[in-house]
Amino acid sequence: MIGRLMQDRVISGKQAINELYRNGYYGRPKDDSLELTLVEAAYLLYKNKLDIELDDGVLGFEDFFTEAAKRQQYFELKYIVYKDLRERGFYVQSGVTDFRVYPRGGHPGKTPAKSFVYVRSERIPMPLSDLLPSVNAAENVRKQMILAIVDEESDLTYYEVKKVKVKGKTKLINPAQDEIRTTLLEDRVIVWDSESSQYLHGNGFYGKPLDNERLQLSLVESAYLLELGLIDIQKSDSEESMDLNDFSSVASSIEPDFMRKYMAYNDLRNSGLVPKTGFKFGTHFRVYAEMVSVDKIPHSEYLIHSIATDHVFMLPVMSRAIRLANSVRKRMLYAIEDRDGITYVDIGRIKM
Amino acid sequence: MIGRLMQDRVISGKQAINELYRNGYYGRPKDDSLELTLVEAAYLLYKNKLDIELDDGVLGFEDFFTEAAKRQQYFELKYIVYKDLRERGFYVQSGVTDFRVYPRGGHPGKTPAKSFVYVRSERIPMPLSDLLPSVNAAENVRKQMILAIVDEESDLTYYEVKKVKVKGKTKLINPAQDEIRTTLLEDRVIVWDSESSQYLHGNGFYGKPLDNERLQLSLVESAYLLELGLIDIQKSDSEESMDLNDFSSVASSIEPDFMRKYMAYNDLRNSGLVPKTGFKFGTHFRVYAEMVSVDKIPHSEYLIHSIATDHVFMLPVMSRAIRLANSVRKRMLYAIEDRDGITYVDIGRIKM
Repeated sequence: MIGRLMQDRVISGKQAINELYRNGYYGRPKDDSLELTLVEAAYLLYKNKLDIELDDGVLGFEDFFTEAAKRQQYFELKYIVYKDLRERGFYVQSGVTDFRVYPRGGHPGKTPAKSFVYVRSERIPMPLSDLLPSVNAAENVRKQMILAIVDEESDLTYYEVKKVKVKGKTKLINPAQDEIRTTLLEDRVIVWDSESSQYLHGNGFYGKPLDNERLQLSLVESAYLLELGLIDIQKSDSEESMDLNDFSSVASSIEPDFMRKYMAYNDLRNSGLVPKTGFKFGTHFRVYAEMVSVDKIPHSEYLIHSIATDHVFMLPVMSRAIRLANSVRKRMLYAIEDRDGITYVDIGRIKM
Repeated sequence: MIGRLMQDRVISGKQAINELYRNGYYGRPKDDSLELTLVEAAYLLYKNKLDIELDDGVLGFEDFFTEAAKRQQYFELKYIVYKDLRERGFYVQSGVTDFRVYPRGGHPGKTPAKSFVYVRSERIPMPLSDLLPSVNAAENVRKQMILAIVDEESDLTYYEVKKVKVKGKTKLINPAQDEIRTTLLEDRVIVWDSESSQYLHGNGFYGKPLDNERLQLSLVESAYLLELGLIDIQKSDSEESMDLNDFSSVASSIEPDFMRKYMAYNDLRNSGLVPKTGFKFGTHFRVYAEMVSVDKIPHSEYLIHSIATDHVFMLPVMSRAIRLANSVRKRMLYAIEDRDGITYVDIGRIKM
């Protein structure tokens, strides 16, 4: 079979439709010819199923590969992913995204594609503003969205990206009879009274005991309980109580991300979940779905990091976050505040 | 026992030397009195072993704690760490660092301190230029250096920080008869020839096979092999060979950290180690001590990240890196280039 390199396509004749398309779903039939992308052509050349001509000569693998890399950005990356998917037994077509992948046992004309695959180099930062429209586009046509990330040594990792709803079963805390008196010290809030400390800690796992009498609350916990009217917060150097605005402003000066973190915290608590700090995992929160008793702390299901809409993912950092989450059997979720509230995006490693 | 709050100390009388110092090693005897730090005093107050006077009154725990927080920066953090160490059975003294901690079974006057403990809030970024002098100071007097990091919920994590030497057993690769011909495509280098591909991959685990004939080399691998004179690198759009300067300059435009990464790579290879990409772990390298055959890849011992001398550790990020490394039974090392070469700093979580 012979194809001719023309711009960023390789065009083969009618016979190729039978031999390459009908028998392997390579390329796209166009009238009486078969149009192959550069990666398809390179793969067929590697498999000795196609010779490729340019001008008057026939190109060897090295020549064609080098030529293709000049004609298409990220050609090598796409080739690595295409080859991997093919060798795992999938039929792959080019599409609006890098590749459309058919489910096992399916192929063009028989079944719809299952996944949209986007190829990325670990070196190229990925803006959330690029990722989200792709996730939405895939969801709108009910496709699985997959990122195929190629590292500097050409190793491949596949990630599935999807929006998820989170919901827990933890009852919301009821206000105590009186507002609980607390003090904001440097960057944490202390509950002084033993009974109140036990109430807050025992009903929703708020705070951490300083000792057997007193409880320390984090800034987001304090803001949430203040907004619910459960606690009263004084500064250590005045007797005046702070309202949510005062407190948020102090908290934001301690922790620049405070408001963004708090919006996610608030949403999670109101969804019946119990968020606690994810510091040890390098994320804002680890999140429990149900907390019946602090004496029997369950496995936390999510690690959640709250990110701004202009966030740019550095892929090695994202890779580490997901790898760590998965290694402790948790899902890694990113929380994004938008007009409709908080959107949670789940990014998880998958085996193809 | 009664103490008097004076500035940032609590001073108690002669009797306290017997009751608190000789019997628990609290404070420091000075002439006929005992001088206690604010955290020591707060702890003794909590244990009902001390009453604290200010002006004409006696301070309750809440009053003293609030007052101390005003008088000393990071008082709460230090208190949390001090209390934790005490309750784990250690004798603790204040020192140039936050705390000097005595070994189990030891105490002031009997044994030298074993560790210097530095207290840090997860929220406060930690410059390498602060960390390194502390590591050196501890090493000079043969103490263990420990970071005690307090997270937003007052949970505590202890890290040991030490300089380490790294050494492997992998033989350096010998030059082949002729320079191996390779091409730099977009951001990776391709070895076209099957025999050369096998030689490089089989002798030191260089590169990754593109297929059963060709090998892909990463930028640092290519620079190293170029410097050794093993390979010749051509650009895809010219026939000219690149020298190390040309190549480094192109590589640095692709990867801004290239030179720093390469210096570490070079040092590791020359120390008999085999560094490969640590992308999946979010670090520059995963490192093998000995690679006898690529058919039997051993467990990699280190994750190594190369950082600049002006690097600032964000503690949640550091915590994640170490947690991930430890979860896959590897040590997390940071490589720093200085006048004498590369210094490796090992930061690992420890249980006190």
